[in-house]
Amino acid sequence: MNFFPLYVAGEFIEGDIQLEVINPFNNQLVANTYLAEKKHLEKAIIAGKSVEKEMQLLPSYKKYQILQHIAKLIQENHIKMSELLAAESGKPLKYAKGEIDRAIQTFIVASEEAKRIPTDYFSLDWTAAGEGKEALVKYFPVGLVAGIAPFNFPLNLAVHKIAPAIAAGNPIILKPARSTPLSTLFLAQLVDQTALPKGALSVLPMDRESGNQLVTDMRFKKLSFTGSPEVGWEMKRNAGSKKITLELGGNAGVIVSEHADIDLAIKKSVAGGYAYSGQVCIHVQRIYVQETVFDRFIEKFKSLTAELKAGDPLDESTDISSMIDESNALRVENWVNEAVMSGAKVLFGGKRNGTYFEPTIMTDTTKEMKVCALEIFGPVVSIEKFKTFEEAVALINDSDYGLQAGVFSNNIKEINYAFQHLEVGGVVSNDVPTFRVDHMPYGGVKNSGFGREGVKYAILEMMEPKLLVKDL
Amino acid sequence: MNFFPLYVAGEFIEGDIQLEVINPFNNQLVANTYLAEKKHLEKAIIAGKSVEKEMQLLPSYKKYQILQHIAKLIQENHIKMSELLAAESGKPLKYAKGEIDRAIQTFIVASEEAKRIPTDYFSLDWTAAGEGKEALVKYFPVGLVAGIAPFNFPLNLAVHKIAPAIAAGNPIILKPARSTPLSTLFLAQLVDQTALPKGALSVLPMDRESGNQLVTDMRFKKLSFTGSPEVGWEMKRNAGSKKITLELGGNAGVIVSEHADIDLAIKKSVAGGYAYSGQVCIHVQRIYVQETVFDRFIEKFKSLTAELKAGDPLDESTDISSMIDESNALRVENWVNEAVMSGAKVLFGGKRNGTYFEPTIMTDTTKEMKVCALEIFGPVVSIEKFKTFEEAVALINDSDYGLQAGVFSNNIKEINYAFQHLEVGGVVSNDVPTFRVDHMPYGGVKNSGFGREGVKYAILEMMEPKLLVKDL
Amino acid sequence: MNFFPLYVAGEFIEGDIQLEVINPFNNQLVANTYLAEKKHLEKAIIAGKSVEKEMQLLPSYKKYQILQHIAKLIQENHIKMSELLAAESGKPLKYAKGEIDRAIQTFIVASEEAKRIPTDYFSLDWTAAGEGKEALVKYFPVGLVAGIAPFNFPLNLAVHKIAPAIAAGNPIILKPARSTPLSTLFLAQLVDQTALPKGALSVLPMDRESGNQLVTDMRFKKLSFTGSPEVGWEMKRNAGSKKITLELGGNAGVIVSEHADIDLAIKKSVAGGYAYSGQVCIHVQRIYVQETVFDRFIEKFKSLTAELKAGDPLDESTDISSMIDESNALRVENWVNEAVMSGAKVLFGGKRNGTYFEPTIMTDTTKEMKVCALEIFGPVVSIEKFKTFEEAVALINDSDYGLQAGVFSNNIKEINYAFQHLEVGGVVSNDVPTFRVDHMPYGGVKNSGFGREGVKYAILEMMEPKLLVKDL
Amino acid sequence: MNFFPLYVAGEFIEGDIQLEVINPFNNQLVANTYLAEKKHLEKAIIAGKSVEKEMQLLPSYKKYQILQHIAKLIQENHIKMSELLAAESGKPLKYAKGEIDRAIQTFIVASEEAKRIPTDYFSLDWTAAGEGKEALVKYFPVGLVAGIAPFNFPLNLAVHKIAPAIAAGNPIILKPARSTPLSTLFLAQLVDQTALPKGALSVLPMDRESGNQLVTDMRFKKLSFTGSPEVGWEMKRNAGSKKITLELGGNAGVIVSEHADIDLAIKKSVAGGYAYSGQVCIHVQRIYVQETVFDRFIEKFKSLTAELKAGDPLDESTDISSMIDESNALRVENWVNEAVMSGAKVLFGGKRNGTYFEPTIMTDTTKEMKVCALEIFGPVVSIEKFKTFEEAVALINDSDYGLQAGVFSNNIKEINYAFQHLEVGGVVSNDVPTFRVDHMPYGGVKNSGFGREGVKYAILEMMEPKLLVKDL
Repeated sequence: MNFFPLYVAGEFIEGDIQLEVINPFNNQLVANTYLAEKKHLEKAIIAGKSVEKEMQLLPSYKKYQILQHIAKLIQENHIKMSELLAAESGKPLKYAKGEIDRAIQTFIVASEEAKRIPTDYFSLDWTAAGEGKEALVKYFPVGLVAGIAPFNFPLNLAVHKIAPAIAAGNPIILKPARSTPLSTLFLAQLVDQTALPKGALSVLPMDRESGNQLVTDMRFKKLSFTGSPEVGWEMKRNAGSKKITLELGGNAGVIVSEHADIDLAIKKSVAGGYAYSGQVCIHVQRIYVQETVFDRFIEKFKSLTAELKAGDPLDESTDISSMIDESNALRVENWVNEAVMSGAKVLFGGKRNGTYFEPTIMTDTTKEMKVCALEIFGPVVSIEKFKTFEEAVALINDSDYGLQAGVFSNNIKEINYAFQHLEVGGVVSNDVPTFRVDHMPYGGVKNSGFGREGVKYAILEMMEPKLLVKDL
Repeated sequence: MNFFPLYVAGEFIEGDIQLEVINPFNNQLVANTYLAEKKHLEKAIIAGKSVEKEMQLLPSYKKYQILQHIAKLIQENHIKMSELLAAESGKPLKYAKGEIDRAIQTFIVASEEAKRIPTDYFSLDWTAAGEGKEALVKYFPVGLVAGIAPFNFPLNLAVHKIAPAIAAGNPIILKPARSTPLSTLFLAQLVDQTALPKGALSVLPMDRESGNQLVTDMRFKKLSFTGSPEVGWEMKRNAGSKKITLELGGNAGVIVSEHADIDLAIKKSVAGGYAYSGQVCIHVQRIYVQETVFDRFIEKFKSLTAELKAGDPLDESTDISSMIDESNALRVENWVNEAVMSGAKVLFGGKRNGTYFEPTIMTDTTKEMKVCALEIFGPVVSIEKFKTFEEAVALINDSDYGLQAGVFSNNIKEINYAFQHLEVGGVVSNDVPTFRVDHMPYGGVKNSGFGREGVKYAILEMMEPKLLVKDL
Repeated sequence: MNFFPLYVAGEFIEGDIQLEVINPFNNQLVANTYLAEKKHLEKAIIAGKSVEKEMQLLPSYKKYQILQHIAKLIQENHIKMSELLAAESGKPLKYAKGEIDRAIQTFIVASEEAKRIPTDYFSLDWTAAGEGKEALVKYFPVGLVAGIAPFNFPLNLAVHKIAPAIAAGNPIILKPARSTPLSTLFLAQLVDQTALPKGALSVLPMDRESGNQLVTDMRFKKLSFTGSPEVGWEMKRNAGSKKITLELGGNAGVIVSEHADIDLAIKKSVAGGYAYSGQVCIHVQRIYVQETVFDRFIEKFKSLTAELKAGDPLDESTDISSMIDESNALRVENWVNEAVMSGAKVLFGGKRNGTYFEPTIMTDTTKEMKVCALEIFGPVVSIEKFKTFEEAVALINDSDYGLQAGVFSNNIKEINYAFQHLEVGGVVSNDVPTFRVDHMPYGGVKNSGFGREGVKYAILEMMEPKLLVKDL
Repeated sequence: MNFFPLYVAGEFIEGDIQLEVINPFNNQLVANTYLAEKKHLEKAIIAGKSVEKEMQLLPSYKKYQILQHIAKLIQENHIKMSELLAAESGKPLKYAKGEIDRAIQTFIVASEEAKRIPTDYFSLDWTAAGEGKEALVKYFPVGLVAGIAPFNFPLNLAVHKIAPAIAAGNPIILKPARSTPLSTLFLAQLVDQTALPKGALSVLPMDRESGNQLVTDMRFKKLSFTGSPEVGWEMKRNAGSKKITLELGGNAGVIVSEHADIDLAIKKSVAGGYAYSGQVCIHVQRIYVQETVFDRFIEKFKSLTAELKAGDPLDESTDISSMIDESNALRVENWVNEAVMSGAKVLFGGKRNGTYFEPTIMTDTTKEMKVCALEIFGPVVSIEKFKTFEEAVALINDSDYGLQAGVFSNNIKEINYAFQHLEVGGVVSNDVPTFRVDHMPYGGVKNSGFGREGVKYAILEMMEPKLLVKDL
């Protein structure tokens, strides 16, 4: 399977512009595919518009069957898809397998939620003007959706757009990342075997210019984007009247209180800091540890980090492998060096080797340093001290981002305070901000995003309420 | 206002059997009223049945206006009603005023909930058999309700039956306690000034024999009873096809962990133990304190108890006054003596003077002693030690009752464990089991009851779901 | 597989008292099983109690997996189970297959609902007394459940007790009907292959005396009974403090307005009247047709009825077969004859042949005749005229029963009026009362029942709310 | 009360730039106020930001008390406010009074909803990854809100921004329309008497340039705009990362089926067509009548229109009065003339006299004419014929707008079809699209808007969900 065709409205098409997909670990070709051109996109849009009504009218049991069928086909191709995903993204196989599991779960949840689209029904007779009348509020699919997915969860973050679109009754055109399009194109081959109406899904790798039409073309009624803040906010400006969801980045923080289970905090934070080399929106980037337990934390954190096994992503035992490309590894190297020059210390790691960057622990960082202030998207964690819990919350909040935060503490008042005051989309108590299961609401505030994903939430953001005023 | 007439379906009627209402503190007559007879009840039932349809069809804004009007009238008679309630029940005025406030709140909440009767609306097309069909589930009033209220909250526990009945669209016949019927009969005079259809409320003090018809007569579609377990469970047996809610007693326990704010635990527990001489279903009867903080707890608990001011219920500064009658005070005295003879110690109080029983602290009690095993309904608290939190939970559970429990701890795991494992209707963290606000669900498991009150919950228990299967 | 053992808490056991299961169509033995004795029941109860906590603590994904696994195993045994069910009950194979499909769906819905147990979370600060506090209401499994299933849907009505019990986290002991225990005993063999904790399900055919312990034994926390009104209401009396759901009978009515699609009304009513020889709680027993369309309705109804094919239940083409036993067929015969003697006319059918009773149309019946007043549970339909829609609603209501009613009309005002005024658990517009899908609420008012089934509803009736008051 | 000061963060301030408010009926000065300048707005913003936290932490009973207090004060000033509103807007007094009633209701509903902010609480253990974890989702206020209100409901559409902002816990700066700022400035004087924290409300009439800062300043976290589509959509483009709600215009249509109550349709449509001279977003602009009842409809519609009494808005008996200003009246005149030149007919009215425009009926219009295609915001109604119901739905949909639509029919299938296929925010069956009660969701699709108002819905759009992942 050396050439993956484009999936254009139910047809597998070869394009004119070839796109090579490279394994970042060994620089070898994984497979070829194509960059879609304007003509392919136009064809997909026209087909998508033409099935809007058919999709809207699908009974829920048919949507359920389609989504369950997709889940079953992924399960049957689990090994193949895991390896493909690991190869195109450099994600260690154990994490790649986890992503396939989650994609299956995302489809299963969507199949169930397709039967449970919320409604509202209430009396209008709160004043005499409404006597004898009642209200039904139902949600209707908005119509054609544009989805743009990032490289770091090439399958599941695409699925978080595709599955809710189908569950809501919308056609969707999905643009995968140029570096990692294969998993999603493979998924298209599975979807094509189901009863999903042709035209309801297209998968098109594109250059940014073509991709821009997903933002500006008014035939799309909804844009769901996962990617960087700069790109995202500019899209919001240009999206016109369409609805938009933005899942952008963050510099997620963890608070470790003296009232915490410290060993748990360490174990979870190491995993959250270095999984897939930190190329995760909610990777643990900043850890604030109460001074009374700081030394103990640092010591054990270092020793656990030292145990991580680097290697080939396709090796089952690998914990950490290459970054997505050398330019990103270089960027991380520069940020670390810049921080060191400004007074920060590297307690562990800190070196680059081609596309590989070592798991790295820093301390004495300041909030102005890029390793703290920006989204590092690399295996670098800074660990700093705090005195009072309120101070720790303020440190997390002193950032342009606000996606998720982790709080390790068994003290109720601290958890309550954190939930009340942390400026984020999600507070994870006694676990890292990296925690996500696929049916929970997910998304950020401040610079980190707009709107929420998580199957049920994504479905609602792809629908529009309609009121019926009716006689009693 | 020496004679309070019966309120029979919109008419104020003098009966043949006179009932004297006595102030238990000074044994003086508060006022006279009557015991309703079979003929009064029959008249009330017939009238109630005849307005069932009118009540069902009342638009929500009219129910809202009626309930708001009642709340406003109580507010205007706040002082008069507080004093009447204090006099008939011996409840200290500060608590009597609180009860009037709560009755107002109960009517306000009911007025708002009358507009928000829940519904369910969902698709039936989960299989092909339901394609093109949707379901609407609405709740309809069951019809005539019988309410039986106890002496200890003579107004607000009657209101917890009357207000939900009106909000649901049901007529109701309310039997107040024989010892404390005046507040509710006064309320009837206020309700009569509103637009509530005549016949939708009757208030009838009765002897138990007449009252028994409220249980057995099939024209009642719902019985809501607050009182003792023996009476309640026998009612359930005889209630036929009608719905039933039982709010029975308890021997509520408190756990004080070493992770608690101990001063808060003491302050709240003294209030929860002795308010209205413990004649409260969720009065603090058993306190389990972790051994590491036991001595400190006992000492301060004693000193706070010693500060309670005994006296005339109509005196604003009184904290504790008479029990409802001498026979109850005697009963408490006997139980305490019996416990002492079996090895328990009295750390404070323990003596009776007529209808007055001192605020009493016991220790070294066992679960077999009546002061622990049964509902004491008097100002007696036992305080015992425990080692592990799990043990404390087991101690609370080792009882026939299960109404509410208080848990003082700032440790998350302890609160979570308590909520998972305590066999009660409500777990109150960092407060006493005596905590109740009027819109929360309230009711017990095991021997403590069946069903839930709390305005929204009581409304639902007075309604019946009806499904409409309709075309899409 | 000639002998079906009892399923006692994870063990397949042969009993001492043999029970022959007979095919009512040909009087041949289908298979043998046993009547459980007191010792079997005691063993099942003890085992059930001992797994209550384990069941309560099962995470939802494990309950989901177990319930999905059961559904899958039934699917794999679809043909075998359909034939077994048809043989033991005399239900024509096409309907038997439908019942197997529905049992699968019931398990699937339960698996999904196991993840979606409702909760309530709200602020308590509606008054100053609740400032800083919030409420969480969660539902906890009640503990050991007793289920009693009838003969007419031997599998799916048992499943409507078993699947919700598992989803709620309760162990259950299920008593199938003596005449049709085999499908459920076969199901037990499938359940035993899953990860359901042993002891969480027992299936025990019993005589009524032993079965009575399911009602009176206080170790059961919930009784769910489907059967006759006399038995059911007596159970309610004797159930003590346990929760109870009663799914009893009915004499379901249909209204056919002149604003209806008459052909649809006829087609659906014939099916609803004669499916499984009317041995269905919501079988169409009474049809009221507006006088303007009465003659047309009768004529076509007769001709469609004439097309029904009688025969062996195991023949794919059979529409109608034997009744469950000869005594029931005799009873129907008597009722029809009695009606004729009182003035009713038989327009079609009316004759018995052994266990077979012809599909029968009557008219000129009165509400006092047993064919109207009681639940006939046989293939007999009365068709009568009405003038105004309000009159038709009154005719339906003039009955002791109130399960479901069908209303054929395209006029909004008529449907609204029917929903407001019909005294039933469910109003089915433009379909027969026989309509049921497995996730909808199902149950009757008046003499027809108490509480609701339908997976989500049944789950809630097997759970108990518990409140946590917590700090903000 | 000749000069209305600006209300800047709790202070009443006189500005430098005077603004005369003119009664459009008689061209007389109603009162003077000021145009706020940059310095006033800056002061309001700074104050608003400084009370964000205080507003967030207000317990619900305090928000309830404040909102109830405002409602009570409006009630006490009902006559004065009605007359002021009638004078500044030219709205006939009977409608002005209705608007005051609705503003009261909007505050009451908001006070109740402040206690009922929705939450979500569910288990995360749908997979092993979430075992032992649960999710709480609460909504938190976004922070400072900017509200921009139009002239046509000068009070209640401002209140639809102010009341939800307070209920949600947000400070708000409200810009009323320049032509009708007085009612809202008067409201500010009432609000100032309550316990609302100073700074939580400012009311500032502004020119568009200053007003533009409400859109672009990132200190505002939410913009709620009611006004014209061109302005609204441009705002969306410039709003940056803030949330936005747009309530824009429409050309609302009515369908009158032959299955309708025609007299009801006529009566309602005349009211919906000419109330406040059609200066209502959901005014009846297009009526489609089935050909079988067209002539009858036209005739009676004309005769009812002829009965409308024109006159002084402050006269209790006036039905229709001046438009808001002469330029608008001129615009309407031009559009009517243009339509006539293109072939449309005026069946009634059609003439202008200064600011007054006659109630006007047109027919033979086409969808290209401005009287149909654009929002006329004047007392002009076109009535056209249709053959099939599907055609009527298509006619309504053939427009850039989609706010609300009315459908008169008693046929269920027609109402169902309309609800499924009309591209609008609300379908009003058996009433005009002009129907609105204040707690229902309100807002349009297509060019008519973005998001929803209606108290509960507006509150949610002013809040942000935050997830807490917690231990079980």
